[in-house]
Amino acid sequence: MEEKQKNIDQVMHDRMKEMKVETMYDRYQAQLPQCGYGSLALCCRHCNYGPCNIDPFGKGPKKGICGADANTFAARHFLRMSGAGTACHSDHGRAVAHLLVATARGEAPGYRIKDVDKLMMVAECFGIKTKDRKINEIAEEVGEMALMEFGKPYGTLLFLKRAPEARQKIWEKIGIASRAIDREVCESFHRTGIGGDQDYRNLTKQAMRVALADGWGGSMIATELQDILFGTPKPVQGRSSMGVLKKDFVNLIVHGHEPQLAEAVVLASSDPEVTKAVLATGAKGVVVAGLCCTANELLVRHGIPMAGHMTMQEPAISTGVVELMVVDIQCVMQAIVETAKHFHTKIVTTLSKAKIFGAEHVEFSDEHAIEAAKKILFMAIENYKNRDNKKVFIPGGAEPNIVAGFSHETIKYMLGGRFRASYRPLNDNIINGRIRGVVGIAGCTSPKIGLGETSYVNLAKELIANDILVVATGCAAGQCADGGLMIPEMKDVCGAGLKEVCEAVGIPPVLHSGACVDNSRILIAVSEMAKEGGLGNDISDLPVAGVCLEWMSEKAIAIGQYFVASGVYTVFGTNSPVAGAPDMQRLLTSEMEELVGATWDFEKDFKKIARMVMDHIEKKRDALGINVKKERKLYDMAERRALERECKPTPGGHH
Amino acid sequence: MEEKQKNIDQVMHDRMKEMKVETMYDRYQAQLPQCGYGSLALCCRHCNYGPCNIDPFGKGPKKGICGADANTFAARHFLRMSGAGTACHSDHGRAVAHLLVATARGEAPGYRIKDVDKLMMVAECFGIKTKDRKINEIAEEVGEMALMEFGKPYGTLLFLKRAPEARQKIWEKIGIASRAIDREVCESFHRTGIGGDQDYRNLTKQAMRVALADGWGGSMIATELQDILFGTPKPVQGRSSMGVLKKDFVNLIVHGHEPQLAEAVVLASSDPEVTKAVLATGAKGVVVAGLCCTANELLVRHGIPMAGHMTMQEPAISTGVVELMVVDIQCVMQAIVETAKHFHTKIVTTLSKAKIFGAEHVEFSDEHAIEAAKKILFMAIENYKNRDNKKVFIPGGAEPNIVAGFSHETIKYMLGGRFRASYRPLNDNIINGRIRGVVGIAGCTSPKIGLGETSYVNLAKELIANDILVVATGCAAGQCADGGLMIPEMKDVCGAGLKEVCEAVGIPPVLHSGACVDNSRILIAVSEMAKEGGLGNDISDLPVAGVCLEWMSEKAIAIGQYFVASGVYTVFGTNSPVAGAPDMQRLLTSEMEELVGATWDFEKDFKKIARMVMDHIEKKRDALGINVKKERKLYDMAERRALERECKPTPGGHH
Repeated sequence: MEEKQKNIDQVMHDRMKEMKVETMYDRYQAQLPQCGYGSLALCCRHCNYGPCNIDPFGKGPKKGICGADANTFAARHFLRMSGAGTACHSDHGRAVAHLLVATARGEAPGYRIKDVDKLMMVAECFGIKTKDRKINEIAEEVGEMALMEFGKPYGTLLFLKRAPEARQKIWEKIGIASRAIDREVCESFHRTGIGGDQDYRNLTKQAMRVALADGWGGSMIATELQDILFGTPKPVQGRSSMGVLKKDFVNLIVHGHEPQLAEAVVLASSDPEVTKAVLATGAKGVVVAGLCCTANELLVRHGIPMAGHMTMQEPAISTGVVELMVVDIQCVMQAIVETAKHFHTKIVTTLSKAKIFGAEHVEFSDEHAIEAAKKILFMAIENYKNRDNKKVFIPGGAEPNIVAGFSHETIKYMLGGRFRASYRPLNDNIINGRIRGVVGIAGCTSPKIGLGETSYVNLAKELIANDILVVATGCAAGQCADGGLMIPEMKDVCGAGLKEVCEAVGIPPVLHSGACVDNSRILIAVSEMAKEGGLGNDISDLPVAGVCLEWMSEKAIAIGQYFVASGVYTVFGTNSPVAGAPDMQRLLTSEMEELVGATWDFEKDFKKIARMVMDHIEKKRDALGINVKKERKLYDMAERRALERECKPTPGGHH
Repeated sequence: MEEKQKNIDQVMHDRMKEMKVETMYDRYQAQLPQCGYGSLALCCRHCNYGPCNIDPFGKGPKKGICGADANTFAARHFLRMSGAGTACHSDHGRAVAHLLVATARGEAPGYRIKDVDKLMMVAECFGIKTKDRKINEIAEEVGEMALMEFGKPYGTLLFLKRAPEARQKIWEKIGIASRAIDREVCESFHRTGIGGDQDYRNLTKQAMRVALADGWGGSMIATELQDILFGTPKPVQGRSSMGVLKKDFVNLIVHGHEPQLAEAVVLASSDPEVTKAVLATGAKGVVVAGLCCTANELLVRHGIPMAGHMTMQEPAISTGVVELMVVDIQCVMQAIVETAKHFHTKIVTTLSKAKIFGAEHVEFSDEHAIEAAKKILFMAIENYKNRDNKKVFIPGGAEPNIVAGFSHETIKYMLGGRFRASYRPLNDNIINGRIRGVVGIAGCTSPKIGLGETSYVNLAKELIANDILVVATGCAAGQCADGGLMIPEMKDVCGAGLKEVCEAVGIPPVLHSGACVDNSRILIAVSEMAKEGGLGNDISDLPVAGVCLEWMSEKAIAIGQYFVASGVYTVFGTNSPVAGAPDMQRLLTSEMEELVGATWDFEKDFKKIARMVMDHIEKKRDALGINVKKERKLYDMAERRALERECKPTPGGHH
């Protein structure tokens, strides 16, 4: 039997097995079989009458003690997932807004306003006067207004106005234009309590409203304000691989989601005192590498190397060369404290809102960021001497293997040609069929998928081979980066049309757009495509789709829901979160079309997903009339006359 | 075998069984055995790696796939319960604040500022200028400031300042002084997502911070602003029994939590058009009766009859005389739609945030409240003709059986004597031992407790027999009202000391203080007791306790947690929500003492709970030095001299 070459994931897990280091795959196996009620959304623990279960097959109960049925169970859980996911991204966005205010006031040494153009754009969006005002004054007001987006008692979110008008009208019409972000989160948890909202259709509407408060609220605030502070991503070479960790160096991994910590660590790492201390240990220097979305943030802005995506956090430690892993918030597994015990690695938490039992804690604040970062660096350096060289094992190379940094502005600029940034050429290439459409691939990696599987890579390859441009974020982007798809040379595995475009523009066919909050970039990109003209007048008219194969975090559900509510057909892999409730499932996968012009789809078989997405894209192309192969028809006299009488404007747009 | 006389609950359920009407007791039976993992908090569905379970006994998994252990599972769930409970009360408080603003602006016809004293008190609390300003101007500003308490980007909640100074210092010291209410809710759901906060001690602190944002935030705003709009409760005669529904009348039940709906219905019910329409049907009039917390709100303010507490919603419909049940939010069971199908009853939802599949909907708004209320009344009247007299069955009498309306102001006034409202006499009576202490009984009713059991009544009886004054809210108050405890004549079952006080003042020994948001009244009462002096200087010094026997809603957990975080020892019956996590259980039931000077206790055996509470009260009395029985000691000369040398101030307070 011939064996395929093992990838880094597999190699590292073999190593961990050998060293008896427990992994998430072990814990996943130990959980099997997983609870069927929970998996089907037929479990409710929203009150202490329960836990209640609904029997999907037999003669068991069809209702909870309060009378809630399967649809209510599933819809409540779905809304709570959407609400919690929104809470994550939004609390992140809030922290960035606070940092912007502190920076503008000069109270956050080490940080500065880096992208003034973006600041001006956001100021304009917020209706803030910019003429004859100091940058810091404008920045402060932008920050303060952003903070009010979380808690203002009246009105809807300002960034909603960035959507196409037709989309805004839909939101208004069905009552899902989001009010203050925190209010939507709060109301979501209110409605899902015992005896609250008990109509699955109504609950799903609120799931849209709270999710829109994520995509067009908290996440968009996070993305835009981070760009103001740390720079809007531009194409940059980078490396994603375990091999970015180096034997003779002090290795520090920054893991989590908020770039303010990582940026401070990167900044402090070049401090002469730090360099001196490193060299004194005998190490050649210090490697700061990212993991999970922190990695994406650092990579797309600075080309700082990425050790891996979310499921690589245990393997990364198991290389034996990580002196310290510093973490902030989200997707940081409690397990790493145990993993670290096998090695000399220190785990350091930094936010009072996210501690881990057994980890060390260094409190990080806007005011003392650089000091905290230096303290952490010194802890890592101090720990270098404790490294056990017998345990060192680093697979993968270190040479650059990605071009990342495709913010919506970059895409617009690169595709727009030399003279002015514009989506016109992209739209034209979609209309002329060189590019069939665009797919956003976002999301998590999961042990539910076999070890070493590269599901996102496989999907992206199939899509680009069929002339579909791919934009990736989050851990999906991380896997595609590892998989080598994010280099211009990949044009050679594209279909002829996409290849031509990639060659002309010099971009890879799979674009790294950042972290999971940066799915907001995709919202802006599709909005601009719709506004550019020729592809209908709403996002739901575009030949685009969203995919998340191995969804895990509640954030993924929020993202999926705001994609759909924004008009993007979205397919999730593994399992549906509402599978046990047929009406709710039908609402998401079919009836949403009538409400917002787009639906969810759930498909366990990953092989089918590329086809589903392509079918959708062709359907949209058909509806736009850009797939029409016009046959030349020779009219006779009678027909000509009829034609003149019934003369109507040509349907469709630019041809 | 002799049978005890059946109470209304049992009689109604016999009737429902006979009529083959499904009840929550049937559904509870169908759910047995309930999931052990869920019951022990050893189930996690916060991400799609799961559902994960932890095996509390055997060799099964001890961690979830992410590595989270039992303490993390339990603490995350506990925080989510606290957060969701806070979301409920707070979203309610927000609605009242919006109504106050609308009323002040003259945009809410039918409502008016009813309690100007309370308005002035809140204005002062908020630091609002009142001199030379119009009432409506002040009210508008109070409303606007209240709204900002939900979303302000900086600072902590204004009402926290109403706590004793010592208590505020504890909150500041351990970092649990609540910021904006919605922010605390949002952060709670952020922290409990996959890979967020994973230290059960840290999660529990946030559970305190979010719960304080309920008790001293959302709930207190709800209570105080409702008092401004609808009047602060004063002692009032009322009736709680199924018997308040009347055969020859059109019966309309108002069920849920927000008084604005109920107040509008009551107001509209005396409209001449309505009266005319009622009489035209042949009915003698219209009965508006409350159910659940809506009932408590109507009862304590206006003496409007109460059909029952939460678990009576199905039985109430099953009397066959309810033309219409109009509901707003919280604790409204989806089941009632099915119950109503057995009768002619219409179920009408009124808020866009709380619909029920299969119910009719009449949207209720501040601006058109009276119109909506009239529309609903006409629907009820119109439905009178459809009543099936063969199905009519009303147990219980209709004569008054309660004195309710004991707001903190009333308690202060009544106990304070003729000349000025004060807690001095209460404190003095506690110090002199006539009253041993005060217990707040709050909370839900549950089918987990046998049908017809009256657990709250039994507990209250035992407490008052032991000279403990009882203050009740929510469904616990409902049950005590039904049980006949809320009349001054009940002094005769009290201990001699409490009897003396009740006789002198003319109050019942069990005081009805309102709905579950009105537990905030208890916070103010205990704060004033602590400030009054003689009983220590913090709430945690007082001989007081809180009890919830049949907790069900997530709101109950939020209430329990803010009681404890405010320094009140609190006992919950049935089961602990964190039973499967020993460290977490120990934190709540013991280590919290060091943090906030109070703990939780969980006790399945209700018979033990009165004893636990009394032991706690005596312990506090001992610590205050007010239980010291001084024996006369005859000193000899040497002892006298020693005494003079070592003379120190007497410990304890007033004797």
